[in-house]
Amino acid sequence: MPEYKPSRNDKFAFGIWCVTNPGADPFGPPTREPMDPIDAIRGLAEHEAWGFESHDNDLYPIDATPAQVGKALKAAKAVMADTGIVCQAFTTNLFTHPVFKDGAFTSNAPQVRAYAVRKAVLAVDAAAELDARNFIFWGGREGAEVDLAKDPAVAIKRLRDAINFICDYGRSVAPKMTFSIEPKPNEPRGDTFLPTVGSALAFIETLSPANCKIVGVNPEVAHVKMAGLNVYHEYAQALEAGKLTELHINDQKPLRYDQDLSFGSVSLKESFFLVKLTMDHNFAGAKSWDAHAYRSEDTAGVWDFVARNMRTWKILEEKVRRVNDDAEITALLAEITASDHDLEDLHRTFSPDNVERLKELKLKPDRLATSRRLPYERLDQLLNEVLLGVR
Amino acid sequence: MPEYKPSRNDKFAFGIWCVTNPGADPFGPPTREPMDPIDAIRGLAEHEAWGFESHDNDLYPIDATPAQVGKALKAAKAVMADTGIVCQAFTTNLFTHPVFKDGAFTSNAPQVRAYAVRKAVLAVDAAAELDARNFIFWGGREGAEVDLAKDPAVAIKRLRDAINFICDYGRSVAPKMTFSIEPKPNEPRGDTFLPTVGSALAFIETLSPANCKIVGVNPEVAHVKMAGLNVYHEYAQALEAGKLTELHINDQKPLRYDQDLSFGSVSLKESFFLVKLTMDHNFAGAKSWDAHAYRSEDTAGVWDFVARNMRTWKILEEKVRRVNDDAEITALLAEITASDHDLEDLHRTFSPDNVERLKELKLKPDRLATSRRLPYERLDQLLNEVLLGVR
Amino acid sequence: MPEYKPSRNDKFAFGIWCVTNPGADPFGPPTREPMDPIDAIRGLAEHEAWGFESHDNDLYPIDATPAQVGKALKAAKAVMADTGIVCQAFTTNLFTHPVFKDGAFTSNAPQVRAYAVRKAVLAVDAAAELDARNFIFWGGREGAEVDLAKDPAVAIKRLRDAINFICDYGRSVAPKMTFSIEPKPNEPRGDTFLPTVGSALAFIETLSPANCKIVGVNPEVAHVKMAGLNVYHEYAQALEAGKLTELHINDQKPLRYDQDLSFGSVSLKESFFLVKLTMDHNFAGAKSWDAHAYRSEDTAGVWDFVARNMRTWKILEEKVRRVNDDAEITALLAEITASDHDLEDLHRTFSPDNVERLKELKLKPDRLATSRRLPYERLDQLLNEVLLGVR
Amino acid sequence: MPEYKPSRNDKFAFGIWCVTNPGADPFGPPTREPMDPIDAIRGLAEHEAWGFESHDNDLYPIDATPAQVGKALKAAKAVMADTGIVCQAFTTNLFTHPVFKDGAFTSNAPQVRAYAVRKAVLAVDAAAELDARNFIFWGGREGAEVDLAKDPAVAIKRLRDAINFICDYGRSVAPKMTFSIEPKPNEPRGDTFLPTVGSALAFIETLSPANCKIVGVNPEVAHVKMAGLNVYHEYAQALEAGKLTELHINDQKPLRYDQDLSFGSVSLKESFFLVKLTMDHNFAGAKSWDAHAYRSEDTAGVWDFVARNMRTWKILEEKVRRVNDDAEITALLAEITASDHDLEDLHRTFSPDNVERLKELKLKPDRLATSRRLPYERLDQLLNEVLLGVR
Repeated sequence: MPEYKPSRNDKFAFGIWCVTNPGADPFGPPTREPMDPIDAIRGLAEHEAWGFESHDNDLYPIDATPAQVGKALKAAKAVMADTGIVCQAFTTNLFTHPVFKDGAFTSNAPQVRAYAVRKAVLAVDAAAELDARNFIFWGGREGAEVDLAKDPAVAIKRLRDAINFICDYGRSVAPKMTFSIEPKPNEPRGDTFLPTVGSALAFIETLSPANCKIVGVNPEVAHVKMAGLNVYHEYAQALEAGKLTELHINDQKPLRYDQDLSFGSVSLKESFFLVKLTMDHNFAGAKSWDAHAYRSEDTAGVWDFVARNMRTWKILEEKVRRVNDDAEITALLAEITASDHDLEDLHRTFSPDNVERLKELKLKPDRLATSRRLPYERLDQLLNEVLLGVR
Repeated sequence: MPEYKPSRNDKFAFGIWCVTNPGADPFGPPTREPMDPIDAIRGLAEHEAWGFESHDNDLYPIDATPAQVGKALKAAKAVMADTGIVCQAFTTNLFTHPVFKDGAFTSNAPQVRAYAVRKAVLAVDAAAELDARNFIFWGGREGAEVDLAKDPAVAIKRLRDAINFICDYGRSVAPKMTFSIEPKPNEPRGDTFLPTVGSALAFIETLSPANCKIVGVNPEVAHVKMAGLNVYHEYAQALEAGKLTELHINDQKPLRYDQDLSFGSVSLKESFFLVKLTMDHNFAGAKSWDAHAYRSEDTAGVWDFVARNMRTWKILEEKVRRVNDDAEITALLAEITASDHDLEDLHRTFSPDNVERLKELKLKPDRLATSRRLPYERLDQLLNEVLLGVR
Repeated sequence: MPEYKPSRNDKFAFGIWCVTNPGADPFGPPTREPMDPIDAIRGLAEHEAWGFESHDNDLYPIDATPAQVGKALKAAKAVMADTGIVCQAFTTNLFTHPVFKDGAFTSNAPQVRAYAVRKAVLAVDAAAELDARNFIFWGGREGAEVDLAKDPAVAIKRLRDAINFICDYGRSVAPKMTFSIEPKPNEPRGDTFLPTVGSALAFIETLSPANCKIVGVNPEVAHVKMAGLNVYHEYAQALEAGKLTELHINDQKPLRYDQDLSFGSVSLKESFFLVKLTMDHNFAGAKSWDAHAYRSEDTAGVWDFVARNMRTWKILEEKVRRVNDDAEITALLAEITASDHDLEDLHRTFSPDNVERLKELKLKPDRLATSRRLPYERLDQLLNEVLLGVR
Repeated sequence: MPEYKPSRNDKFAFGIWCVTNPGADPFGPPTREPMDPIDAIRGLAEHEAWGFESHDNDLYPIDATPAQVGKALKAAKAVMADTGIVCQAFTTNLFTHPVFKDGAFTSNAPQVRAYAVRKAVLAVDAAAELDARNFIFWGGREGAEVDLAKDPAVAIKRLRDAINFICDYGRSVAPKMTFSIEPKPNEPRGDTFLPTVGSALAFIETLSPANCKIVGVNPEVAHVKMAGLNVYHEYAQALEAGKLTELHINDQKPLRYDQDLSFGSVSLKESFFLVKLTMDHNFAGAKSWDAHAYRSEDTAGVWDFVARNMRTWKILEEKVRRVNDDAEITALLAEITASDHDLEDLHRTFSPDNVERLKELKLKPDRLATSRRLPYERLDQLLNEVLLGVR
C-alpha cells in the first residue's frame, strides 16, 4: 500500500480555527479545552501542513492595542520561521462581534460600515506583515432576514465600494497579495449576498479593472452543497475563468446547516472529482481546509481529524491517477468524446461563409440521436469500482 | 376596490407553451386537448397580454421544410398584425428531441454540437422575421449525471464558443435584438451547467466584448427556488449589473422538481419583493410568464390561470405603492438607514489620506453595536399587515 | 378594523427561552442582555399569553442542589399565582451540557444514558410541582454524524426504553400530565432519530399500551420545513390520529438551518393553513411558540416579537372565517367535492357482496377523467385574494 | 478479486418498468425502443434476478378486457415457469391515466375513488394469479398543490378506508400475500400524503388490527433522499418495527426531482449502510430495484444498468463483511459502546425502587462528559479506507 503521507509539496493548509475550534454549536458550549493559536500553527507544521490561514481575531482580540497586535504577529512569525510553515491566507473577522449583527460592509448603519472597512484595512496590514499569499473576504453577516430592510441592489454597491477600497489599499502595501471572495448562501443570515461561486465571480467583474485582476474566489465545498449545487461544476467555472485563487475544503450533507465536516466523510465521489479537477487542470494554488472535528472529539481527536483530511486527499489523488490510466475507461471516453475537427471548425469562429456551410449541412436529428453510443452506466460503474478498490 | 386589470402598458408576456401545455408530466400523459399555437397567441392578446414568447418548435416541427417554417411564421405575423401583440422573445428548443439527450452545445458528439448551433442560427433567422425583442438560451440538457463523462471546464468553453458564434450571427442579421441566458440548476439533467443567475452573469463576462454587451439573463423564479436562493437577491444582482433582460415569472416550493406554478401561489411575500424590485428600480423590460396551469385544469382553467397571474402582479403593484407610501414604514426605514455622509465619503474612494483618516477614527465596537435600534420585527410585521390588507 | 388582540382564551403560550434568548448564534455571542426567567414569565402574562413553557435549566442550573431547585420552582409558582399564567409544558434540557455531546438516551455511554433518564425523572417531578399540562421530549442530540458509531435500530430501542420508563414514572406522580415528542430532522446532529412527525407517531405506537395513550407529538413548523414537508399535512396526520398534543409555532425558509423565525414571517399561506386546521377541527390544545426575535433586536424588540406573533395568529383566524364564509369559495368547494353516497357505501366496508357490485360497475376512465371540472387555479386565486385583503 | 456475481439466493428483484422504461422525461419523449414486458422478465431471469415486480398496466392496458388480462397473465406465468423467476410484487397503476389527475383513493370525485378501489381489487386478483409475494400501494397522485382543495385529515381517512377494504379483500383471496406502502414526499404532486417512511408506519397502525398485521412499507432510497432524510435511519425504523416488507433500491441527489439512478451512483457510503442494515439484522426480504438507466443509454445499456446494480450490492456486501471483521474497527466500537449492565438494568424497567436508586446515583455531568473518548474521526476514516479498498 502507498503511504498517502502529506508533504510540504502538497500545498495543504488549514485555518487556525479548524484546530482551535472548541466544539461549541448553537445548542451547546465548548466541549474541548481552548488551544493557543501559536500551538495550533506549530501542530499543523508538525503534521506536514505547508500553510495556515488566520482571521485577525484568531491571533489577537478585536480591541487589541497596536502593541498587542504587534506582539501577536511577532509570535506568529517566530513559529513560521521556526517551522517553515507559511501564511496562505489572512482575513478579518466581520461576523463575531455584535457590532456586525446586521452586516459589516452592508450594514444599515454608516458607522458600522466605516468600522468594518477600517478593520479590514488594518487586517491587510497584518496580512502583509505575515507575508500572507491571499486575503479572504467572507461576508458571513452580509445579508438579511427581513428583505424590506435592505435593497439588495444597494447592498451590492456597498460591497463593491468596500472591496474596491480595500483592494486599492492592498495593492499599495502588498503588491503580490491576491484577494478572494468566499461565497455562502445562508447562515448565520437568512440569505447572504453573493450566495454562490457564480454570483461572486460575476460581482468580481464589476470591480475596478485593477482590482478585478487580483480578486478571485475560494469556494468551499460545504457552501456549494448548502445550495445543492455540484461541487465539481462550481469549482470548474472559477478555474476556467482563471479565478480559482485557492480551495476551501470540507464536506457536508446538502441543503442543511453548515456542517464543516471532514473531506470525504459524506461523499467520496464528489470529493474525488474536486481532486480530479485540480489534477487534470494543474491547479497550482493552495488546498486549504475550512472544517473542524466532530464536537465529540477531544484534542487528540482534533489531530486525528487533521491527519485524516490530508490522507484522504492523497488517497483520492491516487484514485485519479488510476482512473486516468485505466485502459477501459480511457478507451470508453475516447469513443464517447471523439472529435470531428472539420465540423468543429465550422462553428468555432463566426463568418458568413461558415454560417452558410453550416446551414447546408445534412444533419438528420433522428439519425444523429442514435449514431453514437453513450454507455454511461458502464463508465460510471468502472469509476465506482476504481473508487471501491475492486478494480 | 381597484380592478387590477392588465393592459398593454404592463408589458406582460407569456410563453406560448404556457397555454398550449397539455398537462403531461413524468408520471402521466396529456390531460388537455392540444391547442393551436396561433390560437394561443390570439387568446393571450384577448387577455391583454402585450407580448408572447415562442420556441421554434412551438410554431413548426423540428423537421419542417423551409416552406413549412415560412408558412408558420407568416401565420404568427398575421395574428400579431391583427391583434397588436408582439413577439417578446424567441428561442430554439434544444431539449426535446432525443438527439439532445446528452446536451446540445455541450454534447459529447461533435455532430450534435454542430446540429445544435445550426438549429440556433436558423432560429435567429425566425426570431428576426418575427421582430423578436430578445433571443433566449435555455440549456436544459447542458449538463450531466455522470461527471466522468464531461469535464465541466470543457463544457463551459463549448457553451462560450457556441453562444459567441450565434450572437455574432445575431448581430449581423438583427442588430437590435438582445440575447439572454436562462439559468437552471437541474432537471432534466442531474446537474446543469450555469445553474444560477450568478453563474450565468459570470459566464457572460467571458464572452467576446461585443457579445457581452448584448447578452443578459432572464432569471426564472422557480429556477432560483430550486437552488433555495432568494428571488429578490438574485434578480437584483442581475438588475444592478445592467443585465436583467427580462423576467421569467412563476412560483414553486423550494428545492424540489420544477413546478412552474402560478405567480404568488406559493409565496406571496417573495412574489411581492420581485414586483417591488422592478418598481423601485424602474425596470422597463418585459414581465414574461414561464408557468402552466395545474394538470387538473381544462382549457377554460388555462385561461383562468392566465388571468390570475397578471391580476396577482397588479395587486402586488398596489401593495408596493402602499408600502412605499406608508408613513410608519417610511419613518422606520429612514431611522434604520440614516446616512452619515462624512463617514461614507471616507471610504468611498481610496486615497492614502482617506486611509489615514479612517485609521484614526474613534470607533468602539461595543458602543456601535447598540447605538442604533434595528426594529426589524416591527418593520416586517408592518409589511405583513399591508400584504394581508389589515393596514 | 378588528383589533386582533390576544386573550387568555386563545391558549397562547411561549417558551421562556423564546424571550430570554440572548441572540447568540454559531458565528457570534449574545447581542442582548440576559433576562431573568421569572421576568420573562411575568412579561408573557402581561402580553396576554395564557401559558409558558420551560426547560428545567431555564429555571435552575444543571448542577442545582435540591434546595436551589425548590427555590426556583417556588419563584415560578409565585409569578403563576400572581398573574394567572399556567405552565403549559415542561421539559428537560438534554442537549446543552457537553455530557450530551453524543446524545442522551441514545448515547453510546451507559453512564450518560442513566444520567439522562435520571435528569428527565427529576424534571418530571418539577413539572408536577408546576402543574405542567404536558412534558416534552426533544431529542436534539439523539443522532449521529458517523453512522458506523450507532446502529439506528439499537438507538430506537434505547429511546423506547427511556421514554417508557419516564412515562411510567410520570403516570405515577402526575396522572393527568400528557407527554409529547418533538421531532426534528437534523441540527445540532447531522441526522436526528425520529426526524419527522410521522416517525414520532410511528414510534409512539411501539411504546407500552399505557404510555401510547398519553404520548403525542408537538410538531414545530420550522422542523417540518427543514425536511421540506407540508406543514398542513404533517400537523393533520397527528391531529387525525388523536396525537396532536400541542403546537410549536414559528416559521422558516425550507431546507436550511433552524431559523425559529416569527410565525408568518416567511410564508403567510402555509401559516394560514395551520390556523385553518386548528379551527376546522376544533383543536383545543395550546398554541405555543418556539421562536425567537432576530439577533439584531434589543429587549424592546423581543416584546415586539411576542406581540406580533400572537397578532398574526389572530389575523389569520379572521382570514379563516372569511374563507369559510366566502360564498364563491364555498360554492366552488361544494361542486368540486360533491359526494355520491351510494358509490361511497360500496367500498367503505368490505364484504364479498360489495366487491361483486364494485366489480360490476360501469366506470370508464376516459369519461370519468373529464366528468368533473377541477377549477383549482380559480379556487387558489380566491384564497390568495382573501389573504391579500382585496376580496 | 471476488466475482460479485448475483445468484437467485440473493433475492434480487427488479420492477419490469426499470427495464422497459423508454427514457422519456418531462422535457423529452422516449429515446429507446419499446421493450415487451415478457422479454423484460425473461431478460431479468437471464441476468440472475430472483424476482420481478409489475404494475397491472405493465402487462395489459387499463381498458383491457378480462380475456386480454387473462392472456397477459398467462404469458407472464409461462415465462415464470420457464425461467424460475418469481413475482415478488404486484401493484396497480393509479397515476398514469388522466382519471387520476387529482388522486385516486383521495380524489375529490367519488366516482374516481370508486374506480380506483375497483382497479386495485382487480389487481389483487391478478397478483394472486401470479402468486405475488407482496402487493404495493404507491399513492403517487394522492396529494395536492392547492391546499384549500383537500383537507388532509379527510384525505387520510379516505386512504385508510380504501386500504382497509382492499386488504380485507386481499386476505380473503390471497391469505399469504403481504401488502406494503411506498412513501414519497412529492412529485408528481406538489405534496403527497404519507410523505415519509414514518408517516406510512404511523398510518399503518391506524388500519384495522387484522390489516395492520399484514401491511408494511417498501421504502425507496430516492424517496427518502427527496426529503433529505438519512436512508440508514429510515429503513432501520421500519425494520425495527417489524414492518420492512421489502426494499426499493436506487440512488439520487438529495432534495431534487425523482432521479431513480443506479444504486451507489451518487453515494457509496449511504448505499453501504443500507446493505449493512440488511446484513446486521438478517433481513430476509427481497431487495428490489426501482430505478432506470440514464436516458442516454440504448437497450444494451439497460442491461449494463441491471448488471451494475446487482454487482454494486454484492461488492458492498463484501465491504460490510470487511468492516465487521476489521480488528481495529471492532476494537474501537467495543470501547466506544462498552456496556454497564448494572446501570442499564436500573432504568430498563420502571419500578419505584429503580427510580429511587437512580435518583441516588452520583453522576457528575462535567466528569461524565470527558470520561469516555469518542474517536469518531478515526472510526469514520477507517470505514472510508475499507470502502476505498486501501485497507
